[in-house]
Amino acid sequence: MNTDELVELAQQLRVDSVRAADAAGSGHPTSSMSAADLMAVLLAHHFRYDFERPAHPGNDRFVLSKGHASPLLYAAYKAAGAIEDGELLTFRKLGSRLEGHPTPRRLPWVETATGSLGQGLPVGVGIALSGKRLDRNGYRVWVLCGDSELAEGSIWEAAEHAAYEHLDNLTAIVDVNRLGQRGPTRHGHDLDAYARRFQAFGWHTIEVDGHDVDAVDRAYGEAVSTNGQPTVILARTLKGKGVASAQDREGLHGKPLKDADEAIAELGGPRDLRVYVHEPTATRMLHAVRAGHFELPRWEKGSPEKGVATRDAYGQALTALGTGRSDIVALDGEVGDSTRAEFFAKEHPDRYFECYIAEQQMVAAAVGLASRGWVPYAATFAAFLTRAYDFVRMASVSGAGINLVGSHAGVAIGQDGPSQMGLEDLAMMRAVHGSTVLYPCDANQTAQLVAAMAGCEGIRYLRTSRGESRVIYGPEEEFPIGGSKVLRSSAHDRLTLVAAGVTVAEALAAADALERDGIQARVIDLYSVKPVDRRTLRRAAEDTGCLVTVEDHREEGGLGDAVLDAFLDGRPVPRLVRLAVRTMPGSAAPDQQLHAAGIDAESIAAAGKLLVEEAVVR
Amino acid sequence: MNTDELVELAQQLRVDSVRAADAAGSGHPTSSMSAADLMAVLLAHHFRYDFERPAHPGNDRFVLSKGHASPLLYAAYKAAGAIEDGELLTFRKLGSRLEGHPTPRRLPWVETATGSLGQGLPVGVGIALSGKRLDRNGYRVWVLCGDSELAEGSIWEAAEHAAYEHLDNLTAIVDVNRLGQRGPTRHGHDLDAYARRFQAFGWHTIEVDGHDVDAVDRAYGEAVSTNGQPTVILARTLKGKGVASAQDREGLHGKPLKDADEAIAELGGPRDLRVYVHEPTATRMLHAVRAGHFELPRWEKGSPEKGVATRDAYGQALTALGTGRSDIVALDGEVGDSTRAEFFAKEHPDRYFECYIAEQQMVAAAVGLASRGWVPYAATFAAFLTRAYDFVRMASVSGAGINLVGSHAGVAIGQDGPSQMGLEDLAMMRAVHGSTVLYPCDANQTAQLVAAMAGCEGIRYLRTSRGESRVIYGPEEEFPIGGSKVLRSSAHDRLTLVAAGVTVAEALAAADALERDGIQARVIDLYSVKPVDRRTLRRAAEDTGCLVTVEDHREEGGLGDAVLDAFLDGRPVPRLVRLAVRTMPGSAAPDQQLHAAGIDAESIAAAGKLLVEEAVVR
Repeated sequence: MNTDELVELAQQLRVDSVRAADAAGSGHPTSSMSAADLMAVLLAHHFRYDFERPAHPGNDRFVLSKGHASPLLYAAYKAAGAIEDGELLTFRKLGSRLEGHPTPRRLPWVETATGSLGQGLPVGVGIALSGKRLDRNGYRVWVLCGDSELAEGSIWEAAEHAAYEHLDNLTAIVDVNRLGQRGPTRHGHDLDAYARRFQAFGWHTIEVDGHDVDAVDRAYGEAVSTNGQPTVILARTLKGKGVASAQDREGLHGKPLKDADEAIAELGGPRDLRVYVHEPTATRMLHAVRAGHFELPRWEKGSPEKGVATRDAYGQALTALGTGRSDIVALDGEVGDSTRAEFFAKEHPDRYFECYIAEQQMVAAAVGLASRGWVPYAATFAAFLTRAYDFVRMASVSGAGINLVGSHAGVAIGQDGPSQMGLEDLAMMRAVHGSTVLYPCDANQTAQLVAAMAGCEGIRYLRTSRGESRVIYGPEEEFPIGGSKVLRSSAHDRLTLVAAGVTVAEALAAADALERDGIQARVIDLYSVKPVDRRTLRRAAEDTGCLVTVEDHREEGGLGDAVLDAFLDGRPVPRLVRLAVRTMPGSAAPDQQLHAAGIDAESIAAAGKLLVEEAVVR
Repeated sequence: MNTDELVELAQQLRVDSVRAADAAGSGHPTSSMSAADLMAVLLAHHFRYDFERPAHPGNDRFVLSKGHASPLLYAAYKAAGAIEDGELLTFRKLGSRLEGHPTPRRLPWVETATGSLGQGLPVGVGIALSGKRLDRNGYRVWVLCGDSELAEGSIWEAAEHAAYEHLDNLTAIVDVNRLGQRGPTRHGHDLDAYARRFQAFGWHTIEVDGHDVDAVDRAYGEAVSTNGQPTVILARTLKGKGVASAQDREGLHGKPLKDADEAIAELGGPRDLRVYVHEPTATRMLHAVRAGHFELPRWEKGSPEKGVATRDAYGQALTALGTGRSDIVALDGEVGDSTRAEFFAKEHPDRYFECYIAEQQMVAAAVGLASRGWVPYAATFAAFLTRAYDFVRMASVSGAGINLVGSHAGVAIGQDGPSQMGLEDLAMMRAVHGSTVLYPCDANQTAQLVAAMAGCEGIRYLRTSRGESRVIYGPEEEFPIGGSKVLRSSAHDRLTLVAAGVTVAEALAAADALERDGIQARVIDLYSVKPVDRRTLRRAAEDTGCLVTVEDHREEGGLGDAVLDAFLDGRPVPRLVRLAVRTMPGSAAPDQQLHAAGIDAESIAAAGKLLVEEAVVR
């Protein structure tokens, strides 16, 4: 396209953005209009993509980090012939694929859900990492960012990661329109301020007038020809560009234009230009997934005597899985010696990504890698996964399939104290839509679950422990997701103890103690916290009438609440006592911590006895 | 102190760090040893602090952002005469004040809990903001950071915030010891790499040999005399400095030295130097809290007809509260026009902090301000508070008293779609130790709760809604925290509907529909989600036997689970049905969203009817 045609295309994108928001009665036309020229030039001249084959391995990847500018994205889809004008006008309506913020759940051309700012670039880094280090298919990753979102720290985690990995296949385009939601940004139109920051982080920077299509065209060309480092194009633009009553004005964020017809006329009226997007040039195929033979690590019951930490089992099992499956990749947040991800790193360095202490970027990179077909396992301390909760939440909106592993769960870590204790992780992960939450108590169980979680949909979370625990299952035992294990049961059970992870051994010891007092207790290992084994729990409730749940986690949202999932459909509910961590721990030895929290064998036995006696009295 | 004395003091700090970790059998001596010279010079020459009066308004503030170097901090306390040698050796033991990572819950000289990296500097910015913009007491804030933690995006949110606010009372000291937990950092000893980044963000930077006490002394002096911008001192150091077998070596993070006696001998043996810390020079007093007269906004029942959004009530109530109390401050994440924090900003601009789109920094700044005695209210969309979960968690470890407000809760926001919907916020906030979680349904209730939450301990969370809701309470109604309101009840209730926020109106409508079917239903407005009104819930269970909970939130960890708190002590549990958001919403109108999620009046009535009928059959 020549200059005039590019200008026309950009005006069409503006008009269609205005029309879509007007039809919806909501949306962000002004944020779309500022970036229309940037989008038009990208689409017409630089983006290589087959809209009929979004899975084509050579396709470039586009991420709309400023997800609220979705009208612009959908207008571009229309210009590329991917959607019809009629569908464009379904924007934001019930059942439409064209949501307020784009998601790959509904649209095949969307790589990742955006709308929580500062996430598109981090995920784009993950996709670019795949392109650079794994696929090597020659595609480029283009990320359109807003200027406001550069205030998010996650952007700078991404900037650091991209430069460190020399991702010259990545281009960030920043639509510097000066205005955030409620008013001017910190740096306004000071492009140099942003350039200094990106340069300091090791990026190639280009400053450009974002409404000069020829200059923008040259900037994209320069980005493509830059080697060894990622490029950011800082484009000076005007919010609401092209409509005088909206242009560069405050107070118009996230609102349809007041008089859409007039605005459309001012923009030169509707057009129906069609842009022919360049075909991808990839010569290679999708990475062939090699699913070869592998053996999970095995431990004999009770051996070694001191037990095995489930974090060790994680590291060993993941390494074995990586040997068998070439699509397994691992990430870690600079604690691989603690999470034991370092075992994988040693064996499969090419598929290991050190993310340093940047948990948001770690999860975002995992989402990006997953979008390219890899099966990522990202690990850090369970406590520090809280840092990335918004990314986990958005990964779920994307429908991304990622495995998260949180080590050092609970007060059982001992002396390091509360800052290092994962005590909210089960609540956090359970509340994520469609998640799978696993909490193994021994090494063989961990190994099986590490392998099984690869096959789940959505967000899967594995909680591991720092200290050794006794190997209580044989290596042939199976642990289906959604299952549980009844470790102890008799015809005379008057009580059921439900535990997982470190509290399983405590519950078994408590059952021994209760037996000495003449009370038979059933013990359930609820390793699958979500989905939960409703059937076994209901059976236990019917048989014993009393349940004690015990968990190394806050009382809210963890194992105790998971057990209740079995009874919230109107059926009779058993008598329940929930033991969990109710105080703020300090530093102490692991056994002292369990005792202080009231989740050790002694506490469980006391609670169980009281519950059974009360039930008799009543 | 002269050079030799400073060197001696630093060696003592090393020796005591080694001794403390050795006595504990765990801890981080090598990370302490790298920063010992930095700490010695600060303590002896630049830090102004009265250890006997930690609340002194003129005291400088020290934050150990690399919280794992706690042995160094405690060794410094000993050198300053704040603790005895005997206590130093209780490090990390049950009941000791000297935890693995320092917390203000136990030690009066600690400003904020650290141990989750990348948080000390952000909180330090909040303290410096207080000093610069509010207290104006002339104190300085010193933050000792590790180099590894500079990978956290939150550091760059803090860097941006500090430079933007010209916090020349803030000095960050980075102990660049080159080694993270599992090995070398990204930038090793490349001080320039860090300097470029901080300079780009607007900081004054000083590079120094961190083991040259005279150079360090000059650097501190330069920091103190720098005006208009914060200073970062980038100090080249060696991890494990002073003990050849540990110095600059990998694999020794977080471990006591192998042969402590030998190491102590190599360091010149134990010393018992006492350092006299400069007195604070403050002339001003603590900010006098003016608790004058103010009137909360009032609405008459049913007026205005279209209702009032609880977010509007938040903005108005906070503004009124700010008029009455001079210790109220507000923060917002660049969405003040949506959360309505802008009302406060207009009335009290001097106590309003625009944090731009940086939720971690917003919460950290609130923690810092709270540590100086202010009562902060920090607001953004409920969905985006997930970004700051690790900061909320750590604020709870600190025992900080902060108010968090999440607007745009649930599917009820409508067209914007799932990225903007707070659907995990109740689960996230309930799981925080000692938190208060409030979810009002009308304007008067909101106003009362905004005022009441100022008086709570710990983390308080208020969930507000985007759309208008009918004013159902009069302006004189009271809403104690931990209470609830029975909105409808009779002697013939066969069912209780428990709702909060937007589902209250739906529950009331459902009760009307059920009545038409001959079923009387009680309706409880459970505005205090945590602590929960156990008494009223138990009474309802006894009276009606059946409970339906309904919430605009994920099914895990929210209102439904909160209700169960009333029944987890072994007593008989009523039959329960939990209605919540079980699918991934798209874009649609608010009423369509409630219907699709199965939490509107129609769905509640249907579930209630089924539950009552099943209960009869069984």
